[in-house]
Amino acid sequence: MVTPKDIEAAHLRIAPHLHQTPVLTSRSLNQLANAELYFKCENFQRAGSFKFRGATNTLRQLDNAALTKGVATTSSGNHGAALTLAASLQNAHVTVVMPHNTPAVKVENVKRYGGEIVFCEPTHESREGTLSQLVERSGATVVHPYNDERIIAGQGTAAWELLTAHPDLDAIVAPVSGGGLLSGTLLAAQGKNPKIRVYGAEPLEADDTIRSLEAGRIVPNLSVDTIADGLRAQIGPLTFPIIQQHVTKVLSITEDEIIAAMRLLWERLKIIVEPSGAVPLAAVLKRPEIFCNQKTGLILSGGNTDLDSLPWSR
Amino acid sequence: MVTPKDIEAAHLRIAPHLHQTPVLTSRSLNQLANAELYFKCENFQRAGSFKFRGATNTLRQLDNAALTKGVATTSSGNHGAALTLAASLQNAHVTVVMPHNTPAVKVENVKRYGGEIVFCEPTHESREGTLSQLVERSGATVVHPYNDERIIAGQGTAAWELLTAHPDLDAIVAPVSGGGLLSGTLLAAQGKNPKIRVYGAEPLEADDTIRSLEAGRIVPNLSVDTIADGLRAQIGPLTFPIIQQHVTKVLSITEDEIIAAMRLLWERLKIIVEPSGAVPLAAVLKRPEIFCNQKTGLILSGGNTDLDSLPWSR
Repeated sequence: MVTPKDIEAAHLRIAPHLHQTPVLTSRSLNQLANAELYFKCENFQRAGSFKFRGATNTLRQLDNAALTKGVATTSSGNHGAALTLAASLQNAHVTVVMPHNTPAVKVENVKRYGGEIVFCEPTHESREGTLSQLVERSGATVVHPYNDERIIAGQGTAAWELLTAHPDLDAIVAPVSGGGLLSGTLLAAQGKNPKIRVYGAEPLEADDTIRSLEAGRIVPNLSVDTIADGLRAQIGPLTFPIIQQHVTKVLSITEDEIIAAMRLLWERLKIIVEPSGAVPLAAVLKRPEIFCNQKTGLILSGGNTDLDSLPWSR
Repeated sequence: MVTPKDIEAAHLRIAPHLHQTPVLTSRSLNQLANAELYFKCENFQRAGSFKFRGATNTLRQLDNAALTKGVATTSSGNHGAALTLAASLQNAHVTVVMPHNTPAVKVENVKRYGGEIVFCEPTHESREGTLSQLVERSGATVVHPYNDERIIAGQGTAAWELLTAHPDLDAIVAPVSGGGLLSGTLLAAQGKNPKIRVYGAEPLEADDTIRSLEAGRIVPNLSVDTIADGLRAQIGPLTFPIIQQHVTKVLSITEDEIIAAMRLLWERLKIIVEPSGAVPLAAVLKRPEIFCNQKTGLILSGGNTDLDSLPWSR
């Protein structure tokens, strides 16, 4: 079971390898939200998202024998890029299994950091089968994007840093997908100050977490038709119990709300935030009765987005 | 005559009213440029550009009688927005004269900060005539966007802060248009360390400064057909002599180079920089023989750009 102490230990372990990302504020967004907002900018993290934290925390705990055999994943998104960068910094080989129809920009991200790509068919079976085969051959360690205690502890270090800089926050909002970031954030808040209310924010179009909390057990996503491409995963068996136990509430966000919040962040903060990273601001603007006059931290989870295809110009 | 001491005095005067903008670095851009780059992020400045510095430095020197009568300008761009915000912070009325065909986003910027807009015909004569009439009526102070010693001193405070944080820079690159930012940067470098080489970067499509330096006198722009909408002004009689005396060189940049540099800044730094603000990076990438292995500061002048019309998707 991951505990707040694991977050603290993870932070000590990985801090030298991270970007110390800034916490930004904006008078105009505070006015709009009628609240005091603190944006933790994981879009500026290495490899462009908080995922570098969990990947680094995992890799720094592998021994030399394991590092020599390399690591592998099926994630072609932020976790894949982050794992590749983290592995390259430790001279470990990384293999990413991707469907052959993966967008070129994602393929390029992994290649730029020196990862090997193995293409497969765009089905769940082909992905898992290809991964199993290569692991059997190479002995590589599979690093899951969220269902791993080392990953959860690593992701919690973003909120740990935010709460170290701003210990008097009333609330924190983090996006939720597989639940690594939200469960880590919950544990960080427990460790720093259990009175802080922690909210998840989830696209209505991939709302398995809200429905799982209602059902009292993990239920699957019915669809993942959301622009927030980082939030399409299914809540996991390790992350769900932590969320069940500690979360104040998970808030549901529509596609239009995500796009409007993303555009506001670009215009007012002058920073590039991907759709998934805009979901917490959408939640704060949607539910003024919760956040009014509250000192609220928001985890801007990442900044990897295709500049050729912006949601407001589609 | 503006001197380095005026930059220092301006900084003392306006620092409490500014955003202390960060200096960002990027491993991947350093690799690409084969240099050590320090980006002074004036895109994060209040009202979205360095122009807030000069406007504030001017307004903080007006007496109560002048503030009561208000200020006026014909700039609908960054200077207009910055002057409006600076004036509103001192409860001074501001009037901006704009052609009736000004893009809505610029009109909106001035309105948001509480400025009054007076529309005119889209001709030089109508602009100046309208401005003269309103000044005669109201007694408002006209604040020129660059041909004013208080403006030059204010704009120089960006480089002053950069050199305070990084006194060992070998070179600085600033965009040049009317010359307020470049002349202020030159004086800041003179005051901090006259050995620092200071470069201007100018669109080929509005290259009056380069041609003026060659001619030894101010010669007009032949066209201003550049995407860098902040760099279309004509070098001024106060700024030109400072540039003539101190600049190391002004480098010429094509439209394609501006767009490529802007996109790199968005992708790698995850920040919104307007086309004008990308011109210094374009210069560094274009002239590796100048900047190779040099600690180089770049003034990212602003971040106000129309998100509905990005140059790479036109």
